[in-house]
Amino acid sequence: MFDLKFELIKKDPGSSARLGSLTTTHGKIETPIFMPVGTQATVKAMTPEELVQAGSQIILANTYHLYLRPGHELVGRLGGLHGFMHWDRPILTDSGGFQVFSLGELRKISEEGVKFRSHIDGSRHFLSPELSIAIQQSLGADIAMCFDECPPYPAEVSYVQKSLELTTRWARRCKEAHTRTDQALFGIVQGGMHPELRRESAERLIEIGFDGYALGGLSVGEEKGLMHEMFHACAPYVPEHFPRYIMGIGAPEDLIEAVNAGYDMFDCVMPTRNARNGALFTSFGRINIKAACFEEDTGPVDPECDCYVCRNYSRAYLRHLYRSQEILASRLNTWHNLHYYLNLMRQVRDSIAAGTFSAFRKEFYAQRGGAGSVVSER
Amino acid sequence: MFDLKFELIKKDPGSSARLGSLTTTHGKIETPIFMPVGTQATVKAMTPEELVQAGSQIILANTYHLYLRPGHELVGRLGGLHGFMHWDRPILTDSGGFQVFSLGELRKISEEGVKFRSHIDGSRHFLSPELSIAIQQSLGADIAMCFDECPPYPAEVSYVQKSLELTTRWARRCKEAHTRTDQALFGIVQGGMHPELRRESAERLIEIGFDGYALGGLSVGEEKGLMHEMFHACAPYVPEHFPRYIMGIGAPEDLIEAVNAGYDMFDCVMPTRNARNGALFTSFGRINIKAACFEEDTGPVDPECDCYVCRNYSRAYLRHLYRSQEILASRLNTWHNLHYYLNLMRQVRDSIAAGTFSAFRKEFYAQRGGAGSVVSER
Repeated sequence: MFDLKFELIKKDPGSSARLGSLTTTHGKIETPIFMPVGTQATVKAMTPEELVQAGSQIILANTYHLYLRPGHELVGRLGGLHGFMHWDRPILTDSGGFQVFSLGELRKISEEGVKFRSHIDGSRHFLSPELSIAIQQSLGADIAMCFDECPPYPAEVSYVQKSLELTTRWARRCKEAHTRTDQALFGIVQGGMHPELRRESAERLIEIGFDGYALGGLSVGEEKGLMHEMFHACAPYVPEHFPRYIMGIGAPEDLIEAVNAGYDMFDCVMPTRNARNGALFTSFGRINIKAACFEEDTGPVDPECDCYVCRNYSRAYLRHLYRSQEILASRLNTWHNLHYYLNLMRQVRDSIAAGTFSAFRKEFYAQRGGAGSVVSER
Repeated sequence: MFDLKFELIKKDPGSSARLGSLTTTHGKIETPIFMPVGTQATVKAMTPEELVQAGSQIILANTYHLYLRPGHELVGRLGGLHGFMHWDRPILTDSGGFQVFSLGELRKISEEGVKFRSHIDGSRHFLSPELSIAIQQSLGADIAMCFDECPPYPAEVSYVQKSLELTTRWARRCKEAHTRTDQALFGIVQGGMHPELRRESAERLIEIGFDGYALGGLSVGEEKGLMHEMFHACAPYVPEHFPRYIMGIGAPEDLIEAVNAGYDMFDCVMPTRNARNGALFTSFGRINIKAACFEEDTGPVDPECDCYVCRNYSRAYLRHLYRSQEILASRLNTWHNLHYYLNLMRQVRDSIAAGTFSAFRKEFYAQRGGAGSVVSER
């Protein structure tokens, strides 16, 4: 097993937020950190150089997608994901678990693993803990994830209990199958919206022993308030000397709440996917660039933003590109949104370092119209 | 009228090729030159900075498209195309003539102008020489083009004769309507595949007096050999102290033949459109990146190319991006193809400067398998 070095640099006095650093095979990352999602070995619309310019230190790639196309063995033969996609910083791969469960009717779960049909061509496949690890070892990410079952929400507590037991057995099989010594392996805590089940899941995973622990199965349809409660309830179940990761979240306010609760790592398609739909994040909330009010607006997307897009393009031009379905629209919108997310996390880290995270959090909400409020689309 | 400065620097001893420079309001460009097409105020998939890195000195934008969306008056109010699209080098706008004639059943020509329906929403519009000039003046390009009629091919000689007379009357109206003193205006020579009509068209436009002259109505379905013959036949009709432009061509070999015949300026969607379809230009001909033979090919698109794409990505990765319909596929393919075109023209200029253009032309064909041969897609 890889000896992942997680260093806790500072704990915030007024919250559970913490500043840390994680040393992987491809270098050190600062936490709390946001990981842009590069599903198919590319963060949609961005080059690796632009990702670095926007502030990315680590990206996530999807095992399910890369297994189906171009195939993990091919990526492995070509030297792994880093060389394949021209990215020399750290990479985390998910396990494919969440993706196959998202296929709904197209998949069937058993003790052994999951039978599913490809969303691309309907072909039949079988994913198991062992195969998930084999795929991730071929892809060569710095951090691999255990293959887990993600229960739906809402679900009967008995189902969630059984599911976490399966996830635990699969986690043990993942650890046994994992052989790369230059790759860390994280466990995924399940247990739905039941803190006592989350605690059980965490304890059993910690018994097996992993390099870090993630919360899976959140942001699956539950109320935002409940999700944030789960953040706080579950953080203590993972001892503080481990990196804590919440998978698949979230909106900017979710990241702030997760940091506040003591988590270190996050990923979400929100900044990139929203960008392609014209929804842009700003210091004053979200806007949609296609709105008529921007037709002759010569100002930048966000006057407080210093990204490449805000320095060089007007809202009027971005609106024109979006309406004209130009590729440059997706590019510039993605660049801005990723810069927003990565800069937000930079500010979060700076505030923890300065011991002012709570004030930063308060100001964050004040700018957007009140604590906990979700700024509506314009 | 703008005093466009065209300087003839050197004439090739063994051909009609010539090296020149054209000084516009937004700077000097070296000729022979290829102008990437930025139809909707963006060269598809590229930022302005990348265009410069790939070697672009001037780009073309389309009057028809920008008139319909976002509207030339809006672009004018926002400071013209240069500020709108964040491009501070020269721009040439076409007149909209070719685009409206391409609408086929959707347009109707009269002495006054052309009635047409928008390809976007079917709305009715009327484009005249005066409106075309007004649009181009609002857009603020460095070089505007006269509104012309482009006869179909094949066409009766009597139709082509009448058409060129209409184009001549429209050219006079364009010159009368044109008032910007910081914008050059070029005439467009028509006359189909009839050299004597082309001569008549050129003479009558030169009587009116423009800053430069273009050949329109080529690459409209005629044989490549006939098109190249027209290049040679028509060049002498425009005195050598004027810039000569052939609109809408072409393949790399068309550019070489046009330079050989004495032309200075070119534009074509081929490098950008082909890129989005996976067709890439190389020193040894065209390849299609989706071909199965590239599945595990770790080499660059073109071993002789030093562009950003060839320096950093493998054919295998580009194939994966293309098959996965990733935006980065369009980006990288476009970057490579534009670099190929712009680098080809750089080599052309260097060879004219060195007095070796004929040898360069011979070598160009030899690398691709023989003079005049069109390299087939793999």
